[in-house]
Amino acid sequence: TVNFARMKETIEYSAKVGEIPNQGLRRLALSKEDKTMREQLREWMIDAGLEVRIDDFGNMYGRRKGQTNFDPLVIGSHLDTQPNGGRFDGVLGVLTALEAIRTLNDYEIETYRPIEIVNFTNEEGARFEPPLLGSGGLTGVFSKEYVYNRQDRDGKFFKNELAEIDFKGGETNRLQRAHAFLELHIEQGPVLENEGVTIGAVEGIKGMSWLELKVTGEGGHAGPTPMPLRKDAMMAAANIISHIEQKSNVFDNDLTVTVGRLDVKPGAVNCIPEEIVFSVDVRHLDDEVRKKFIDEMKVEMQDMATDRKVELETETLWEVNTSTFHEGIIDQVSKSAERLGYSNRRLYSGAGHDAKYMNAFCATGMIFLPSVDGKSHVESELTLDEDIEKGANVLLDTMIHVTDN
Amino acid sequence: TVNFARMKETIEYSAKVGEIPNQGLRRLALSKEDKTMREQLREWMIDAGLEVRIDDFGNMYGRRKGQTNFDPLVIGSHLDTQPNGGRFDGVLGVLTALEAIRTLNDYEIETYRPIEIVNFTNEEGARFEPPLLGSGGLTGVFSKEYVYNRQDRDGKFFKNELAEIDFKGGETNRLQRAHAFLELHIEQGPVLENEGVTIGAVEGIKGMSWLELKVTGEGGHAGPTPMPLRKDAMMAAANIISHIEQKSNVFDNDLTVTVGRLDVKPGAVNCIPEEIVFSVDVRHLDDEVRKKFIDEMKVEMQDMATDRKVELETETLWEVNTSTFHEGIIDQVSKSAERLGYSNRRLYSGAGHDAKYMNAFCATGMIFLPSVDGKSHVESELTLDEDIEKGANVLLDTMIHVTDN
Ligand SMILES: NC(=O)NCCC(=O)O
Ligand SMILES: NC(=O)NCCC(=O)O
Repeated sequence: TVNFARMKETIEYSAKVGEIPNQGLRRLALSKEDKTMREQLREWMIDAGLEVRIDDFGNMYGRRKGQTNFDPLVIGSHLDTQPNGGRFDGVLGVLTALEAIRTLNDYEIETYRPIEIVNFTNEEGARFEPPLLGSGGLTGVFSKEYVYNRQDRDGKFFKNELAEIDFKGGETNRLQRAHAFLELHIEQGPVLENEGVTIGAVEGIKGMSWLELKVTGEGGHAGPTPMPLRKDAMMAAANIISHIEQKSNVFDNDLTVTVGRLDVKPGAVNCIPEEIVFSVDVRHLDDEVRKKFIDEMKVEMQDMATDRKVELETETLWEVNTSTFHEGIIDQVSKSAERLGYSNRRLYSGAGHDAKYMNAFCATGMIFLPSVDGKSHVESELTLDEDIEKGANVLLDTMIHVTDN
Repeated sequence: TVNFARMKETIEYSAKVGEIPNQGLRRLALSKEDKTMREQLREWMIDAGLEVRIDDFGNMYGRRKGQTNFDPLVIGSHLDTQPNGGRFDGVLGVLTALEAIRTLNDYEIETYRPIEIVNFTNEEGARFEPPLLGSGGLTGVFSKEYVYNRQDRDGKFFKNELAEIDFKGGETNRLQRAHAFLELHIEQGPVLENEGVTIGAVEGIKGMSWLELKVTGEGGHAGPTPMPLRKDAMMAAANIISHIEQKSNVFDNDLTVTVGRLDVKPGAVNCIPEEIVFSVDVRHLDDEVRKKFIDEMKVEMQDMATDRKVELETETLWEVNTSTFHEGIIDQVSKSAERLGYSNRRLYSGAGHDAKYMNAFCATGMIFLPSVDGKSHVESELTLDEDIEKGANVLLDTMIHVTDN
């Protein structure tokens, strides 16, 4: 079993790099804080005897030799966070992987296959949309050009920001092949906690769509412009957003719909908004339900826009279908949890993870840990020490079994 | 009558200082562009033989001696603009005043009373809220401390920004007393154009309220958080905004309601918004109607917030009642227009103007010119040359009559 005190130190170090009030973390991808954290991870990996590589997406790998030179088992997650994120999302996946390696070192265990730790770039999609850019680039879902040309909201390019923090490595450093990929992560939802279960053996990831809607009306002065003459983009957008929510409530109980960002142009108290741009995030386990909802919604929103004489443009920023992980790995996670005496259950993930794209690359699975109050993407995100320790032990056990196959 | 070609040159100069695409202007108060424009105005005033003063709010005055040393007639407006504003809002009031002075110089006319041109600071309220800060400070509506402590959205203070552009003058430079104040401005609404009338003799200014609403819900992850467990601040805000619009539609035909700015925290696609802050601008000629609307709205919004288990805080940022200008001046504007053979009518202003606060300081009146398509606070704002020329002539004529009294 792992050395929890040692792992806890690394978690506490990470919690300082980009710390914000209320125990939060703001460590946006390719920011100064991300650079600092990456440099520390590199140091820790070197200290653990790993051979470090950085690829052209900034993904970081640390390789530990095995008895054989067969395809490695890869374990890890991401170290970037949301703007007002917590200390655990992604971080635990990388730091439990590091601890698992350190534990193998303690016991001088030489695994059958090599093991590689990975820290994927820009998992969150908070700074550069869409999410999973590093794993998506590696696995060929996104072209290098696409990834490099992503821009943050200040117009800065992924490519330049990656070079800026000195983490633009060579294409030949990419992971070429893998036997399997394992990612430990917090659940970010309420299921495990509600049921008092410690370990989630993740069956797969729900499908999701990211849309961007642009409502174009007509600007004008908030005072002298009579209401009937207005084409107020804000009022149109508020109506559309309310409608999206109402529709989702009656459409399907398991559908989730979120409008996470909204920008107003010009954005002054006494200016009628001429343009509103907002995002819509739609998720469902059943891809058909999600697609039907979006198709119907598009028609209805267009009608609403026409009624108000405003323009509506809809763009799909990102879309992934529901995917199912490797049955052998799901099963091994359950078995390892059982063996260690930890309560466990299977469940689907409502959040996207790098494991999503790795799943098409190699046999993939995930381990979930409970989130207190089901909270994530907020400062108050919390996973209890005892659960983290158990999770790391399950990761270690699963890992040893998977590398032996 | 004025020299239109000469005035046109000054308007075109101004149109370059902060120019943005589509004939727009972005010359936010106390910005670099505002500084450049102010420096030019100072030069023009000095060239016209005026004695220039800057007061502690950055208000600029240019004084022309009269036959007597009695209280001056003051004419002017503002040179700051909205973020995506046009070339005429405010600008015409200052530049027609300058042209009127130049015309007096051409004909070597010595008026009975002194005349002062004024350029008020931060009329728009786009950078520093609320609007009319310079005229409100001068007339004692706002304390110096209040004005100095206004912050823009980057947290920069009025006081520091004023010093930064080198326009922080002395308190003793403030206008002490005035015989009358005259402001020429574009209508910013459709009334004059719809009726084919050139000159508006402004009767007064409609009352208005600026509110700021803060909806506090709970953040969370857009994926794994089931809809029934959410306290989504965005969905609550969208519903409230839709309700405000619906209510205003049935409440009173002449009420205007605008939600001009809205900020989302944290503002990422996959984060449930935890906090939404937005403005509401409410206007009506009848103060009681406006107040009743707001009072009822507050109760209803609070109920909506309670239903959704989100918090709602409402703050009044700014509020002014309807005011009526000096009957003698309103009348003189009509008479001057008549004398010059220009069509004219009386009307109320739906926009706030520095004349609002000057009205409590001295006899005050305004001259309105038609806005093409009733548009303002947009790049496409337009007032035709022929109307500007006529307006300047009415200003000159009214001025000469008022200074003689
Ligand atoms: N785990 C996580 O927060 N991933 C970001 C992608 C998503 O929005 O689900
Ligand atoms: N004229 C003008 O646009 N003033 C700004 C104050 C207001 O919102 O009415």
